[in-house]
Amino acid sequence: MDWEWIENGSVTSPEGFLASGVACSIKTTGNKDLALIVSETPCVAAATFTTNKVKAAPVLVSKENLKPRKAMVRAIVVNSGNANCCTGAKGIEDARKMCEETGRALEIPAHQVLVASTGIIGRTLPMDRIISGIRQATQLLSRNGGQDAAEAILTTDSFPKSRALRFAVGGSEVRIGGIAKGAGMIAPQMATMLAFLTTDARVEKTALQQALRYAVDRSFNSIAVDGDTSTNDTVFLLANWQGGGPTISLDSPHFPVFQSVLTTLCQELSQLIVRDGEGASKFVEIRVKGAESDKDARAVALTVANSVLVKTALFGNDPNWGRIAAAVGRAPAKVRLESLTIQVGDFLCLDKGEPVPFDEGRVHHWLKENRDIFLVIDLGIGSGKWSVWTCDLTVDYVRFNAEYTT
Amino acid sequence: MDWEWIENGSVTSPEGFLASGVACSIKTTGNKDLALIVSETPCVAAATFTTNKVKAAPVLVSKENLKPRKAMVRAIVVNSGNANCCTGAKGIEDARKMCEETGRALEIPAHQVLVASTGIIGRTLPMDRIISGIRQATQLLSRNGGQDAAEAILTTDSFPKSRALRFAVGGSEVRIGGIAKGAGMIAPQMATMLAFLTTDARVEKTALQQALRYAVDRSFNSIAVDGDTSTNDTVFLLANWQGGGPTISLDSPHFPVFQSVLTTLCQELSQLIVRDGEGASKFVEIRVKGAESDKDARAVALTVANSVLVKTALFGNDPNWGRIAAAVGRAPAKVRLESLTIQVGDFLCLDKGEPVPFDEGRVHHWLKENRDIFLVIDLGIGSGKWSVWTCDLTVDYVRFNAEYTT
Repeated sequence: MDWEWIENGSVTSPEGFLASGVACSIKTTGNKDLALIVSETPCVAAATFTTNKVKAAPVLVSKENLKPRKAMVRAIVVNSGNANCCTGAKGIEDARKMCEETGRALEIPAHQVLVASTGIIGRTLPMDRIISGIRQATQLLSRNGGQDAAEAILTTDSFPKSRALRFAVGGSEVRIGGIAKGAGMIAPQMATMLAFLTTDARVEKTALQQALRYAVDRSFNSIAVDGDTSTNDTVFLLANWQGGGPTISLDSPHFPVFQSVLTTLCQELSQLIVRDGEGASKFVEIRVKGAESDKDARAVALTVANSVLVKTALFGNDPNWGRIAAAVGRAPAKVRLESLTIQVGDFLCLDKGEPVPFDEGRVHHWLKENRDIFLVIDLGIGSGKWSVWTCDLTVDYVRFNAEYTT
Repeated sequence: MDWEWIENGSVTSPEGFLASGVACSIKTTGNKDLALIVSETPCVAAATFTTNKVKAAPVLVSKENLKPRKAMVRAIVVNSGNANCCTGAKGIEDARKMCEETGRALEIPAHQVLVASTGIIGRTLPMDRIISGIRQATQLLSRNGGQDAAEAILTTDSFPKSRALRFAVGGSEVRIGGIAKGAGMIAPQMATMLAFLTTDARVEKTALQQALRYAVDRSFNSIAVDGDTSTNDTVFLLANWQGGGPTISLDSPHFPVFQSVLTTLCQELSQLIVRDGEGASKFVEIRVKGAESDKDARAVALTVANSVLVKTALFGNDPNWGRIAAAVGRAPAKVRLESLTIQVGDFLCLDKGEPVPFDEGRVHHWLKENRDIFLVIDLGIGSGKWSVWTCDLTVDYVRFNAEYTT
């Protein structure tokens, strides 16, 4: 497939998208904390939200705005520094007000605005500051504003995450761009995984939603930092059709191409999130194969990725594969010890349930010398497979998450 | 109910039980690493085992020995320092050999011996040393050997865990004793939760098994240190009937008494395990009520107890109740934000989904000044309730689990 990264790509790389990011004192640090992403024309939209039963107000309000079958979207407004979660009836009112104020500033209907928040739970939003932030952000909207927006959605992330790529659909060049922040609930201020994606490809609504679900499953839903699921997790994808080319519907020959390129973009953004995991010293790919189904493979990969014992062993460069075997065994999946094979990198440790003598010093050395490592787990049952990305659990992670005081 | 602790109580407190613990160089430290618990007469036995699908060889062999409907048990042999897990066919052979050698030394059938192991995964047992250890332990069996046995089953625990209590059944005094070690998989060498219980009460087999299941659910299965489930977790309960008194069957009026006293003993032992959690600086009780069912309450309590973010916040004495709300929301249970109430100790934070202004400094101070703390979570839905005990996640835990190298 032909696609390539766009240099300094972002949500504003696709045609017809504007963005901005401003500081309006929601954060006490003075950093940017309000982002606006706007399309010049109405967009078809797709979304995925947190599965947490405690949902933040902006999640509920955005769901509401996306509910009508013919809902079109013009803008996304995001604040960082405050999650607007567990804020009761006032929280819902405030999230709606963010849409209204954005609609007023842009002269579009409020229901064409989606809203997201990230930050601390349980505090009401400083609405005066947010309203003036929205007005300021509207003034600053530009075709180069993607990087500012990427900065404005961060909480404890150490760098902004922004990418875009271009590819051909039936002879026309189209683009997908995106910005993202924070790995799940890794942060002391209850950071959230947020991603905002834009495209100028001509994708129909059902195709857009299905492609997003596919891509998110293989990217943002296949990373693990600490196993906690935020109340605010949100991914939005807007398509404004300005890039031209043929319409991409579910049965279009171009659909698999769009879906695959979107997945590549989402995987890149989600891996940046893992690399920026709090205190992380290692980037770990966990490859599971031989499972009864892809679902089983994923359950095993996520259980290993969330094992505190596996993560601390990796931090210590300890080839303690017994911890991996134990995590595999407690995963909600079909597992048989007698067909289980485990590799740490290229080093075989367990072969169909039988331990393999291996040079521990050499594996320790390999772990120590490499920041990017991988584990291979073969369940020896079927042909299901899945990969998950995670980081290690370090002393710095605990320190960082403990030293913060509300 | 009338019961009391027995001073320096252990598995040898009930009539007719002998025990010993010896050092036979399975551990490199020279510490005791082989324990024997023996009844003078055959016992009715009950057991619960790990739910991990990767099961250690001693788990499989003990299950085999307990399988016949009329199986009677005379002895338990336990080694620490090596889990005999992921050791293939040789591992099964070795676990069986431990039963045979114990049977030979005690002059009883091998199938009347149960076996357990704890320690590192993936290495074959040093059988020569274990066999000489079994012979030595047989020589040292005594009515005061409970404490030695409690020591010999430890891995990274910092103190032996041993308790016994006495109570009356139909005018006769009977006893239950027990020893335990290691909280789940908290240890660098893959420590396991093991508990061995003895009683001289006259309890029928089905009643014994049901009482044990009830007690274990409310004790060893209601503690969380790091969320990992060992491949070796085992609880055995032997009843030799030497205390006299009426027979306790499922429909006996004495059954609820026995079950309740057994639960008290198991809760005490399991709480000792949590207090001895690696690097733990806090002992935390999580009380959930108002759930649709006890099962839901337990799911919520365990999810909160295993949340890395909640545990690091507690380490930092941070009253960050938003992390608790988020963990509640991702538990596999019926949860409604609008009926959710959260207290940190006696301090109300969230009242039926509405945040309550509270003095953060005061709560921080309370957390800082108390080693034993509690959280109360009211789901506001039904009358289901459950309590779980856990500890915080500290810098020392990570250091300890990372610095170990196989």
